[in-house]
Amino acid sequence: MTRTLNVAMIGGGFMGKAHALAYAAMPMFFWPAPAIPVRKVVVDVTEALADEGRRRYGFEESSADWRAVVKRPDIDVIDIVTPNDSHAAIAIAAAEAGKHIICEKPLARGGDEAKTMLDAVNKAGVIHMVAFNYRRTPAVALARQYIEEGRIGTILNFRGTYLQDWSADPDSPLSWRFQKKIAGSGSIGDIGTHVVDLARYLVGEIAEVSALVRTYNKTRPIQRGNLDRLGAAEKNIGAERAEVDVDDEVVTLLKFADGAIGSLEATRNAYGRNNFITFEIHGTKGSIAFNYERRDELQVMFADDPADARGFRTVYSGPAHPYGAGLWPIPALGIGYSETKIVECFDFFSAIVSGRQPSPNFEDGYKTERVADALIESGESGQWTKVRS
Amino acid sequence: MTRTLNVAMIGGGFMGKAHALAYAAMPMFFWPAPAIPVRKVVVDVTEALADEGRRRYGFEESSADWRAVVKRPDIDVIDIVTPNDSHAAIAIAAAEAGKHIICEKPLARGGDEAKTMLDAVNKAGVIHMVAFNYRRTPAVALARQYIEEGRIGTILNFRGTYLQDWSADPDSPLSWRFQKKIAGSGSIGDIGTHVVDLARYLVGEIAEVSALVRTYNKTRPIQRGNLDRLGAAEKNIGAERAEVDVDDEVVTLLKFADGAIGSLEATRNAYGRNNFITFEIHGTKGSIAFNYERRDELQVMFADDPADARGFRTVYSGPAHPYGAGLWPIPALGIGYSETKIVECFDFFSAIVSGRQPSPNFEDGYKTERVADALIESGESGQWTKVRS
Amino acid sequence: MTRTLNVAMIGGGFMGKAHALAYAAMPMFFWPAPAIPVRKVVVDVTEALADEGRRRYGFEESSADWRAVVKRPDIDVIDIVTPNDSHAAIAIAAAEAGKHIICEKPLARGGDEAKTMLDAVNKAGVIHMVAFNYRRTPAVALARQYIEEGRIGTILNFRGTYLQDWSADPDSPLSWRFQKKIAGSGSIGDIGTHVVDLARYLVGEIAEVSALVRTYNKTRPIQRGNLDRLGAAEKNIGAERAEVDVDDEVVTLLKFADGAIGSLEATRNAYGRNNFITFEIHGTKGSIAFNYERRDELQVMFADDPADARGFRTVYSGPAHPYGAGLWPIPALGIGYSETKIVECFDFFSAIVSGRQPSPNFEDGYKTERVADALIESGESGQWTKVRS
Amino acid sequence: MTRTLNVAMIGGGFMGKAHALAYAAMPMFFWPAPAIPVRKVVVDVTEALADEGRRRYGFEESSADWRAVVKRPDIDVIDIVTPNDSHAAIAIAAAEAGKHIICEKPLARGGDEAKTMLDAVNKAGVIHMVAFNYRRTPAVALARQYIEEGRIGTILNFRGTYLQDWSADPDSPLSWRFQKKIAGSGSIGDIGTHVVDLARYLVGEIAEVSALVRTYNKTRPIQRGNLDRLGAAEKNIGAERAEVDVDDEVVTLLKFADGAIGSLEATRNAYGRNNFITFEIHGTKGSIAFNYERRDELQVMFADDPADARGFRTVYSGPAHPYGAGLWPIPALGIGYSETKIVECFDFFSAIVSGRQPSPNFEDGYKTERVADALIESGESGQWTKVRS
Repeated sequence: MTRTLNVAMIGGGFMGKAHALAYAAMPMFFWPAPAIPVRKVVVDVTEALADEGRRRYGFEESSADWRAVVKRPDIDVIDIVTPNDSHAAIAIAAAEAGKHIICEKPLARGGDEAKTMLDAVNKAGVIHMVAFNYRRTPAVALARQYIEEGRIGTILNFRGTYLQDWSADPDSPLSWRFQKKIAGSGSIGDIGTHVVDLARYLVGEIAEVSALVRTYNKTRPIQRGNLDRLGAAEKNIGAERAEVDVDDEVVTLLKFADGAIGSLEATRNAYGRNNFITFEIHGTKGSIAFNYERRDELQVMFADDPADARGFRTVYSGPAHPYGAGLWPIPALGIGYSETKIVECFDFFSAIVSGRQPSPNFEDGYKTERVADALIESGESGQWTKVRS
Repeated sequence: MTRTLNVAMIGGGFMGKAHALAYAAMPMFFWPAPAIPVRKVVVDVTEALADEGRRRYGFEESSADWRAVVKRPDIDVIDIVTPNDSHAAIAIAAAEAGKHIICEKPLARGGDEAKTMLDAVNKAGVIHMVAFNYRRTPAVALARQYIEEGRIGTILNFRGTYLQDWSADPDSPLSWRFQKKIAGSGSIGDIGTHVVDLARYLVGEIAEVSALVRTYNKTRPIQRGNLDRLGAAEKNIGAERAEVDVDDEVVTLLKFADGAIGSLEATRNAYGRNNFITFEIHGTKGSIAFNYERRDELQVMFADDPADARGFRTVYSGPAHPYGAGLWPIPALGIGYSETKIVECFDFFSAIVSGRQPSPNFEDGYKTERVADALIESGESGQWTKVRS
Repeated sequence: MTRTLNVAMIGGGFMGKAHALAYAAMPMFFWPAPAIPVRKVVVDVTEALADEGRRRYGFEESSADWRAVVKRPDIDVIDIVTPNDSHAAIAIAAAEAGKHIICEKPLARGGDEAKTMLDAVNKAGVIHMVAFNYRRTPAVALARQYIEEGRIGTILNFRGTYLQDWSADPDSPLSWRFQKKIAGSGSIGDIGTHVVDLARYLVGEIAEVSALVRTYNKTRPIQRGNLDRLGAAEKNIGAERAEVDVDDEVVTLLKFADGAIGSLEATRNAYGRNNFITFEIHGTKGSIAFNYERRDELQVMFADDPADARGFRTVYSGPAHPYGAGLWPIPALGIGYSETKIVECFDFFSAIVSGRQPSPNFEDGYKTERVADALIESGESGQWTKVRS
Repeated sequence: MTRTLNVAMIGGGFMGKAHALAYAAMPMFFWPAPAIPVRKVVVDVTEALADEGRRRYGFEESSADWRAVVKRPDIDVIDIVTPNDSHAAIAIAAAEAGKHIICEKPLARGGDEAKTMLDAVNKAGVIHMVAFNYRRTPAVALARQYIEEGRIGTILNFRGTYLQDWSADPDSPLSWRFQKKIAGSGSIGDIGTHVVDLARYLVGEIAEVSALVRTYNKTRPIQRGNLDRLGAAEKNIGAERAEVDVDDEVVTLLKFADGAIGSLEATRNAYGRNNFITFEIHGTKGSIAFNYERRDELQVMFADDPADARGFRTVYSGPAHPYGAGLWPIPALGIGYSETKIVECFDFFSAIVSGRQPSPNFEDGYKTERVADALIESGESGQWTKVRS
């Protein structure tokens, strides 16, 4: 009989939706499931919100007291989908209570805070994961497979972008994502860390950065209501404005520990780009390119193809590729955001059952935070900055 | 308090997965939900399979006796995800029992059979729907919106394709999809009807067709096990072979009732195409193009754009578009197959609650079957063939 | 010493430009050239126009009397770039005078007229060519090479389109291209024949068609001046209008002599499409796709690629492909319309020097006209129509 | 009567072909031409080569003595298409002889050398141009037009790439392009300067850079013959090898003088990329994206488009766009490398006739060399480096 694991999800919002879907759907896709997630308790800031979350997301119970929930002996897994400023407190409490933890990205508001979390989970010996879901896109996992198999040779160059436009309008509201005390940083932590995670996953450790960091919109209208609605937010022209103290954009050079070089651009101010997560990797035997906006596809070029039939292949991920046995039976039937989260959930529950840490875990999250620290520091100093380890 | 509706799902397989996910996730996305689906009973051909389906898909109960389940007074909705040859029997029984019905496509093995189903639901006065999910893709719904608003003018021409390659290999197994007595037809019913549904949704009724129909692979290895796995099926070289008595490919001209013309191509033998559902529509004021393999995008061209900035716009569906309030908060975050089924479920449950028939309902499914009949007839006669009504 | 051949070009306009460029540039690209074209005489309808053509296109002499020029003993080659209604008279006179002939497409205003031209050149024993330049695109020639080498197996299906929008506006002027007595037909002859030529080049003879033919704009403003300017024409709102007696659009099914099937769509009313010449070919071992709007690229898929790296390859034509030795030294440096005409000129002059007929020659042009005849006939009769031979 | 101008072209090779075509074709396209180029003398390193160039490229005379030709009183224009190490000597001599000069890019082997050339032309008062042809692509000129008209607002970010793969193979021969004494630098001068030119054209002066510069292949086989054939070169496995003393790749951050930021990547080692010149520009009112491999197209997004129809427009350059009157009468008929050189020639001859310096002229070429100097310096120092003026 497949084991069940009781989940307490702390937080709601758009990420709550994505995680709840994954708990419900994971065994439908990956069967037999490593373990069946039970949506036990959902926690939100008020009883009313929590109860609504319970009904909406199909949890058995609700609560407005995460501290109490974290200690409940019947809970196996704590899922942290709150804004960044509460990740550490919840994760540390959860670790102390011996719970397995999955935490939304970025892990923390910087490397120092992330370190406290990493120390806590290491001490507790629990399973831990950071929800950098984009590396779960099957086409991205396929890129990793090609690289691991040596099919594109030694990597020379990585170029990554994460471009969005939901904050390009100066009148889009000042959600928590524009406030340093809550978010830690702006485009760097919110989206840049996704690209850092992909770079680390595909190429390796980042050793040094030289960055340009900019804040284009210095103030924004104060948000009505407390819900972060990203691109669905209503504009709020004429409202009182407050200061943005985080970055809108970062562009950086990268030196990888193993000698490869690269660059990264992350911005929420790129009109016309929506969730434009791309990478291109040049190796000594081939190249790989990916664009999440067309996420069913991976572009791969093998240098040893015959001269008259050489070019990027557009490979649609499907049954023959990573996670293919669990997903849809035909390529291009359609990988969406849901599927990335279902795969993430599968890998997390597999880790719990196997007792082996998944990737990216809190150590990965911590290292990514150290890259974020270096980006901010380099942006300020104008110097090449080593990533602390 | 949001109403709940008890669902009995008849059948498993890949479609069972998709429907089960939709029941679990629909309220997470569309909240408050029109009604909350309760996964009450899943039915499969054996008790063992049904019980596995129960655990995998999160149903409360399982059964191997669909006739008994259909009559249960606690069941509100019958969901038919079986092969085509049992659609009619189940649907008619469900209608007679007063259940609302959602049935996978194609509705039946031809227009005559579909008519019996339509008559049954009309007589019973229940809500009924056919699961042509692709018109639920937000970008497709956006195309419909542009057309309804007159933004591309009068439609002159429609070209649609559904190209796959999972049966191009002559050694891919003879699943039920290659057997006329079960499937009714081949590419025509399996995938061509999806394009017919899109054509009817976007342009209008099809009045007449002139078709070419081909079967390229006349025999296939008999399938091991009874599970239809589409592109994930193992090849079965050397096994005993049996006859394919359905079509592999159809190409047809279309005359629409309102004067537009068009063409349609559907094949499961197009190497390199996976789920290549495309349409292009030319109107007197603009054009629209769509490719499901890049389903977050709709291409639209408005003829009245200024001469120096005229061209197809690549619109990524998101919060500003149909179903946007319920889906993801940023365009290109990712519409997958899951999301099309979640939207379908939302529209079906909305229909039940409102008492107004959704679209496509059994009448649409019936008309689509009549187009399929005409395609087969024209393919045989080599004549322009009127679609019966 | 490389031989020279004296060319008389009859006609100017946009095609005169393209041909003149090819004469000047061909030896620059293909060196040593098979023969060096000498731009000897250009003929236009008036002395003034002809003299302007001489200066503009770099010819030595000009004339308004094509009948005299055709007989000049110092002329080796007659190049016909006039509207369709004078092709036959000029070509027949040129053949009688023993000149080699290149004639713009379509060869004639129908098969009967084309037959008189074919008979004339056959009788004269001269070299003859029809200027279907698109098959000279290196990527198209590469498609042919793959097919000839058997790399995509037996062809099952061909889908071709030629979509433009320069006549979608009902106020674009009534140039000769909308007048049957000059043009012979509309979209069928003007652009449809290009796709027919590609289909014949890549797949083989077309045996039978079932076509839909439409004229959407029944009248157009009478053109000011006599110059056909296509998409650069000024609209002429409010001007007197006259009847359009040719087709705007054709959509057809195709049966090839060797058993393959297909479809073809040609229209000048597709908003947003400019020179959208596309084809997709499915074979038993792979597929090919091409879009002239991105003409440096050929998409090719080989079914025997490994399952985990299968997909269309985007091959950029270059030195390793047909005509590559003469063109640019790097793929994607840029094939434009000029290059297609330079290649055409190279093949024509190579044919003259070798004494072997090039392809497409007048026999090809004649066969293509017979397909055009069948399209018109089928459009009128609503029946499958055999292509006369 | 249109004026004629006598051209002496110094050098042959692939660039000679491109320039000779432009001289022949420019008046065919842009009529009446500003002046008609007369291909008077072609100069190469030997009499035999020069004579072959004369016949191939349609010049009247040939010579192996550029110094003599430069002084000929009947010569109006000196066209320099030699390797980089002779640009300065020829240009300075030409300036001293009072000739108008067009010089292939990069202008020189660095800023200091470029300065001597700039001083010479300034002193002589002649018209001068550097042949950065890619900004002549109509779609690029359209991007500039949108920017000048303020349609994308204030520019925030520019990302440019020039990726090729013809030197990725360690056995591709050591042409002059890999030798510092001839080329000055590697990817920086050869292709990086094209992107610098585009950045300066579209955004403005570059003030400061932080660069990574790499040489991956430290040795190459010595080239057989002296002809640089780029991607058409034969590999030369087993031959004696010599040192590469220039860069293979540069990646850099950019600070523009007006506050915008950006990045640039240029490499000849990117497998699968052929002539991948791209830029993406984000402004406060919209965005622009371009990829030369699909050079008929410009992508532009206007932020003030209605929310339900917002996205990048794919604009195919044609009659309604820059240079459209002279080029082809339909968009997507096909812009190739030829057309970029024809436009360049038109702008150069227009400048001569008008007496107003064209752009990019030697001052632009000089400034671009200063950026190249800064890239090399920053690559060595690891510091942000100001561009000297």
